[in-house]
Amino acid sequence: MDALEKLKALSKELELINAAVATMAWDQRTYMPPKSAGTRSEAIGYLSTIAFKKFISDETGEIIRELEKEDNFNRLDENEKAMVRIAKREYEKAKAIPPELFQKFTITASKSETVWEQAKKNNDFKSFQPYLEELLEMLREMAELYGYKENPYDALLDKYEPGITTRKLKKIIETLKAELIPFLREIIEQKGKTDPSILYGRFGKKAQEKLSIRALKAIGYDFEAGRLDETVHPFTISLGAGDVRVTTKYDPHFLQPSLYGTFHEGGHALYEQGLPEEFKYTPIYGAVSLGIHESQSRMMENMVARSYEFLKFFYPEIKKVFPKQFGRVSLDRFYRAINHVEPSLIRIEADEVTYNFHIMLRFELEEAMLNKSLEVKDLPRAWNEKIKEYLGIEPQNDAEGVLQDVHWANGMIGYFPSYMLGNLYAAQLFAKAEEEIPKLRKNIEKGNVAVLIEWLRENIHRHGKKYLPEELIKISTGEELNPEYFIRYIKEKYTKIYEI
Amino acid sequence: MDALEKLKALSKELELINAAVATMAWDQRTYMPPKSAGTRSEAIGYLSTIAFKKFISDETGEIIRELEKEDNFNRLDENEKAMVRIAKREYEKAKAIPPELFQKFTITASKSETVWEQAKKNNDFKSFQPYLEELLEMLREMAELYGYKENPYDALLDKYEPGITTRKLKKIIETLKAELIPFLREIIEQKGKTDPSILYGRFGKKAQEKLSIRALKAIGYDFEAGRLDETVHPFTISLGAGDVRVTTKYDPHFLQPSLYGTFHEGGHALYEQGLPEEFKYTPIYGAVSLGIHESQSRMMENMVARSYEFLKFFYPEIKKVFPKQFGRVSLDRFYRAINHVEPSLIRIEADEVTYNFHIMLRFELEEAMLNKSLEVKDLPRAWNEKIKEYLGIEPQNDAEGVLQDVHWANGMIGYFPSYMLGNLYAAQLFAKAEEEIPKLRKNIEKGNVAVLIEWLRENIHRHGKKYLPEELIKISTGEELNPEYFIRYIKEKYTKIYEI
Repeated sequence: MDALEKLKALSKELELINAAVATMAWDQRTYMPPKSAGTRSEAIGYLSTIAFKKFISDETGEIIRELEKEDNFNRLDENEKAMVRIAKREYEKAKAIPPELFQKFTITASKSETVWEQAKKNNDFKSFQPYLEELLEMLREMAELYGYKENPYDALLDKYEPGITTRKLKKIIETLKAELIPFLREIIEQKGKTDPSILYGRFGKKAQEKLSIRALKAIGYDFEAGRLDETVHPFTISLGAGDVRVTTKYDPHFLQPSLYGTFHEGGHALYEQGLPEEFKYTPIYGAVSLGIHESQSRMMENMVARSYEFLKFFYPEIKKVFPKQFGRVSLDRFYRAINHVEPSLIRIEADEVTYNFHIMLRFELEEAMLNKSLEVKDLPRAWNEKIKEYLGIEPQNDAEGVLQDVHWANGMIGYFPSYMLGNLYAAQLFAKAEEEIPKLRKNIEKGNVAVLIEWLRENIHRHGKKYLPEELIKISTGEELNPEYFIRYIKEKYTKIYEI
Repeated sequence: MDALEKLKALSKELELINAAVATMAWDQRTYMPPKSAGTRSEAIGYLSTIAFKKFISDETGEIIRELEKEDNFNRLDENEKAMVRIAKREYEKAKAIPPELFQKFTITASKSETVWEQAKKNNDFKSFQPYLEELLEMLREMAELYGYKENPYDALLDKYEPGITTRKLKKIIETLKAELIPFLREIIEQKGKTDPSILYGRFGKKAQEKLSIRALKAIGYDFEAGRLDETVHPFTISLGAGDVRVTTKYDPHFLQPSLYGTFHEGGHALYEQGLPEEFKYTPIYGAVSLGIHESQSRMMENMVARSYEFLKFFYPEIKKVFPKQFGRVSLDRFYRAINHVEPSLIRIEADEVTYNFHIMLRFELEEAMLNKSLEVKDLPRAWNEKIKEYLGIEPQNDAEGVLQDVHWANGMIGYFPSYMLGNLYAAQLFAKAEEEIPKLRKNIEKGNVAVLIEWLRENIHRHGKKYLPEELIKISTGEELNPEYFIRYIKEKYTKIYEI
């Protein structure tokens, strides 16, 4: 067997183990009975470790070295070269951290999450502080081991969004702030123009489920290659090619979370369902990055499902399922309700104008903590100041402030920016799609979302993991990541809605 | 780490892999979307092979040899000794078959199953015949490799019901036939005494599900450590300690399959839920044999749930869920309906009097084929003759005759007897329970099935895999397997019902 075959065989083994782990993880968060928890964690941990050990073995290094030899490498086609490149990148990342440090980090993160849960409940940042300090200390060590050019934070960013740097992010954020903070102020002045109250009321769970299924069908989700189930914290997960599952949550008094949550997860799922069959079981099967993944979900949730055009087609479906609630509500009123902008404290409930500010402040704070220009003990104060500055509001307590997200408790520093990048990629991609697809908005109005999905398949999905996020954006839009698309999208849409 | 610790560590690894495989298998038969099938089969196959290879490694042999050394062995307690014994038995079985033969067998069985499906559909035994011949040829070879004292069939039996022999089975069957064939004739003469027609009608799926959940609760199934889901071919599966799941099937026009299928699977599940926590992750965690497993399901389905006493308590529940269907039906009439005896062609639909005859004929035919006293080409004729002899009926075609079960197509020869043994064990155990539990039937009448479950926990479940089936029966009932208990149970019950 030559080295390429060996690489593919290894990749297949890892994907089969991952398929097992993903199946267990999906079940754990949907149907698993409580007394199964102990064994399930052990089984997931055990199989993940098997896969990890297999991947970081010397044999993997040997295969990669063999494939990198000039004679061998030159004989490969473009896809095969990408396989070697990606395998090498991931191998080096995995090897960079000594197993003892990695294990210590995992254990600390796990304890930290438990402490954070209590801290959030008791509104007690102090009890959580030493854990965050310890995690940051280890993350600094890990950043050194991963390596970086300019800023230790770059090393962590690179895990989630390869190629992006702190410097680039700061520049983007500067642009966004300059344009959007004043624009948000203008919106707030026009407050009465939107009214989300019609989205609150009584919404039967079965009916919400029915609507969520229709929502997924409307955007082209393939139910032969997935399912929709209920969970507590919604997610999308691939259990292997041909099996990408969506979950959602039904709030009996508020329609938005299940309906728009489903569009969001559906966007993630369409990406995974669109990955090229020919890459299956190779190192380039998969999503490019968290940010690109998020671009697919945000585009579907916001640019598509929150557009007037889409609702022209889909709002009648909503009315059919909830005739009492919306029978007398005009499309215009519904459209405004679903696009209501209002500064709020909780990130996951934020609208598309304010959302990025939640990310910026997290990015600025975590970067400062990592580089010790902010001490952990001063974090709550810094948080409250920033959210006041950006959104004009202040948390009553840390539970609705600095303690709201699990990410830091889990040691996921460098993760948040991918949410913001997702929004920016989405706007840039959607602008390009509008340019290239004749009458895109007209098509969407007729329920033909398929033209957009085809475009995404062709320009994003079919490449699998072949490119870095920035390369992919350049290939698909002809231009580097440019926040102006997002700014333009927001301004055009909300200038109309708020009649600014 | 000493050898015992090594054995336990190995056993834990195998159980964690099995938990993953079981989760995937459960999902495959309940919720998996169709396009997932390919990856799922590969993942299950891959992980099963990992576990198998790990188990048959030289290291395992070394651990067992080390533990068997007199000095070491004598230091072990009774449970630990059983661990070594069971591990050795399973290791030797697994090592007996060369991997090439095993793989060839697996592939042939898989092809054979596909061919059988078509053959059954087209009522075409001829197309299936060469596959069965090939499988039998390999099974003869495997029997030689496993080894046996008297009859090659013993080697196959031993895989499913360790310790049982062809000789013992034949003697049991002789007794059963002598007593039950004439008794069945008497029942048939009293035909009008029972009428199952009230069990047919319209039974909403949601209501059936509700009733199945109540049925499981009534027999003490723990929903914190399991769930009930719908499937095509009902089964019970353990996804690890604390997670034993039941499945059932809802026929919208016939109540019996879901309700009594649920009692049956519930009996299996109670066994697995009752396994001792202290044996978790060791070689003695698990069920003794298929036959003992079946004794638990048959006892719950027939001796408990089909008893007058249980229905006195549970029939009101059935009425509550289906007031239209049973509002005016007396307990007596329902009891007779659910215990209706009638020779029929399909094993899985058979009542408790005729069921064993379906097994006997399969046993006699498969034993004869293995030993070449019956040629495969003559199997359909032999089948039809035997079913005529035992039950007085004849299939119209092979689909409802010799082709009805998947077992032979799958190469599972030696499996069927465990169904019959289950019935016999159940009767013997239940007789002992009646002897030892004060007022067992009175308790059941009051819905207190728990006293019986406690007895089973104490006498069967808590031993895990420690003993051979025959040893366990002797320990728990004080006597060797004796078919007279089953005969007595059947005669007492049906003499009353049919007023013989």
